[in-house]
Amino acid sequence: MKATLMYGPGDVRVETVPDVRIIEPTDALVVITRACICGSDLWPYKTMNPSETGRSMGHELIGVVDAVGSEVRKVKRGDLVVAPFAFSDGTCIFCREGLHTSCMHGGFFGIGDVGGAQSEAVRVPQADGTLVVLPVGRDDDLMPSLLTLSDVMGTGHHAAVCAKVGPGKTVAVVGDGAVGICGVLAARRLGAGRIILLGRHPDRIALAKEFGATDIVSERGDDAVERVREITHGLGAHSVLECVGLEQSMLTALSIARPGGSVGRVGVPQEQTIPAAQPTFYNNITVSGGPAPVRAYIEELLPDVLDGGINPGRVFDRITDIEGVPDGYREMNDRKAIKVMIKF
Amino acid sequence: MKATLMYGPGDVRVETVPDVRIIEPTDALVVITRACICGSDLWPYKTMNPSETGRSMGHELIGVVDAVGSEVRKVKRGDLVVAPFAFSDGTCIFCREGLHTSCMHGGFFGIGDVGGAQSEAVRVPQADGTLVVLPVGRDDDLMPSLLTLSDVMGTGHHAAVCAKVGPGKTVAVVGDGAVGICGVLAARRLGAGRIILLGRHPDRIALAKEFGATDIVSERGDDAVERVREITHGLGAHSVLECVGLEQSMLTALSIARPGGSVGRVGVPQEQTIPAAQPTFYNNITVSGGPAPVRAYIEELLPDVLDGGINPGRVFDRITDIEGVPDGYREMNDRKAIKVMIKF
Repeated sequence: MKATLMYGPGDVRVETVPDVRIIEPTDALVVITRACICGSDLWPYKTMNPSETGRSMGHELIGVVDAVGSEVRKVKRGDLVVAPFAFSDGTCIFCREGLHTSCMHGGFFGIGDVGGAQSEAVRVPQADGTLVVLPVGRDDDLMPSLLTLSDVMGTGHHAAVCAKVGPGKTVAVVGDGAVGICGVLAARRLGAGRIILLGRHPDRIALAKEFGATDIVSERGDDAVERVREITHGLGAHSVLECVGLEQSMLTALSIARPGGSVGRVGVPQEQTIPAAQPTFYNNITVSGGPAPVRAYIEELLPDVLDGGINPGRVFDRITDIEGVPDGYREMNDRKAIKVMIKF
Repeated sequence: MKATLMYGPGDVRVETVPDVRIIEPTDALVVITRACICGSDLWPYKTMNPSETGRSMGHELIGVVDAVGSEVRKVKRGDLVVAPFAFSDGTCIFCREGLHTSCMHGGFFGIGDVGGAQSEAVRVPQADGTLVVLPVGRDDDLMPSLLTLSDVMGTGHHAAVCAKVGPGKTVAVVGDGAVGICGVLAARRLGAGRIILLGRHPDRIALAKEFGATDIVSERGDDAVERVREITHGLGAHSVLECVGLEQSMLTALSIARPGGSVGRVGVPQEQTIPAAQPTFYNNITVSGGPAPVRAYIEELLPDVLDGGINPGRVFDRITDIEGVPDGYREMNDRKAIKVMIKF
């Protein structure tokens, strides 16, 4: 089968690898119909240490179940399913609390002996806990939006939940990548009164406005902080979604939060230290977030996608086949594409 | 009048200074009957840059109103009052939200032209918003516990609130100072199921046990983390109260929090950076806290103090008059006293 491997910065190749097979009785094999490239895939694309064997890429997928292990009960051959970027058993103490990314028997696609999803097929461990059957056909018009439930929409939603977005609140979203844009949509869905997007790319800003952004701040650093303060009458935002993951973006996020406010950070930040920005402690600002428990959020968000209430699939502005994946990385890295969908 | 001034590390002097007087029409003058020395006073005691004019010390007080400005309506001469460590107008947007430490017209005792409370009298700005009248006599047996509402009990309570302590939860308290001990009491009051104290001093541990600590961990660093993990069956604590304020204690706090758990940090931390401890982000740990909005908490905690439901005044294990304040600093700095009360 064909799969995507990364060998070093800028070096992405589509190669033929051994077919996946059932290893554990709780596994399912899924033949992928849709996958995509994630903003977090761009970190290794910029910085990874060269690898002789390559790193299997991709963690967002919709596909058709091809085979299941002997202990799998909830999905069967032929089901169309979506998988979150982390697999999880659905039964451990953390899964029961809705924190599937901390599952005691879980893990991530593209790590260890579990392959990546920018491939023709993938082995899904803990299939019963991980996979969600979709009640639509494999080429339904909703495919792009359903695919975002695998990661990017759930991640934007997690940023909003961690930042305590609620009805009438003033929200700021730092970053106009696909996660930030989905964060805007999630904030609107949760009833935010005002949504300020910090971003600079016209195509992304246009989509964010359609998704509910009420104000755009294109300045950077201290100027951005000052502009948000102006917009918020000097108070700052109740809820700040940090959707970039760099030290400077985190500093900006902490600096535009209102006293008593919250910052939700998500994704795969390059910088995890929370800087000692003077206001963070003295203004009683809460910092929350981490990898999104997307599996829990699929159940919350799926009805809204199915009834057309939200259409996060609009973040995809390029479609390619698997042979075009290396070009897709280039386009996303050059900011020519917001997010690239892979159609099989 | 006599007041306490700090001139440099270890150099605390009681001196005669000009009497306080009304400056603003919203001021009250309070003749102090009880004050105390705070753990946060020990930071400058260890590290302050020498000062020729001295720094006015103290921010916890009970006293009798001696005079009020022309616009003061809620307190009058002769009232016995308790003051939180921060003054606040009680009417601004942040005060109305219960975050009085971010009051738009507020400030702190012992800073700028507002004197400290380790003095015979103090000028209290924003008297209507700041002072709470106590329904007891000035030498009531409850004085020690009422005095803790000025800071230390409210601060321990804030740590517990920020760490999301609730019924049945497993709580860990890092630090056996007066704030940590009050944090134990606050956690018990909020219904914690298990309360693990990380501390090493037998007298403090004994009091923490009386206040509700169920487990004591006297190891430090990695050994402490391992011990808490053993006690919590490998999971960590739902709620961690960081009551020390050093980098190492914050690292310990982050490392013993359970995935999805919360760390509440309070007081005047020497180190405000939140370290990039590997688990913080990947375990979705929330970090919250700051200066406690003690003014808001007085109204919540006062009834429990008045009816004897909590007795946080037991953290005072030394009483002195104002002349004994320099010795009180020494005893607290040498860990010979948990907390020193000043009786006028």
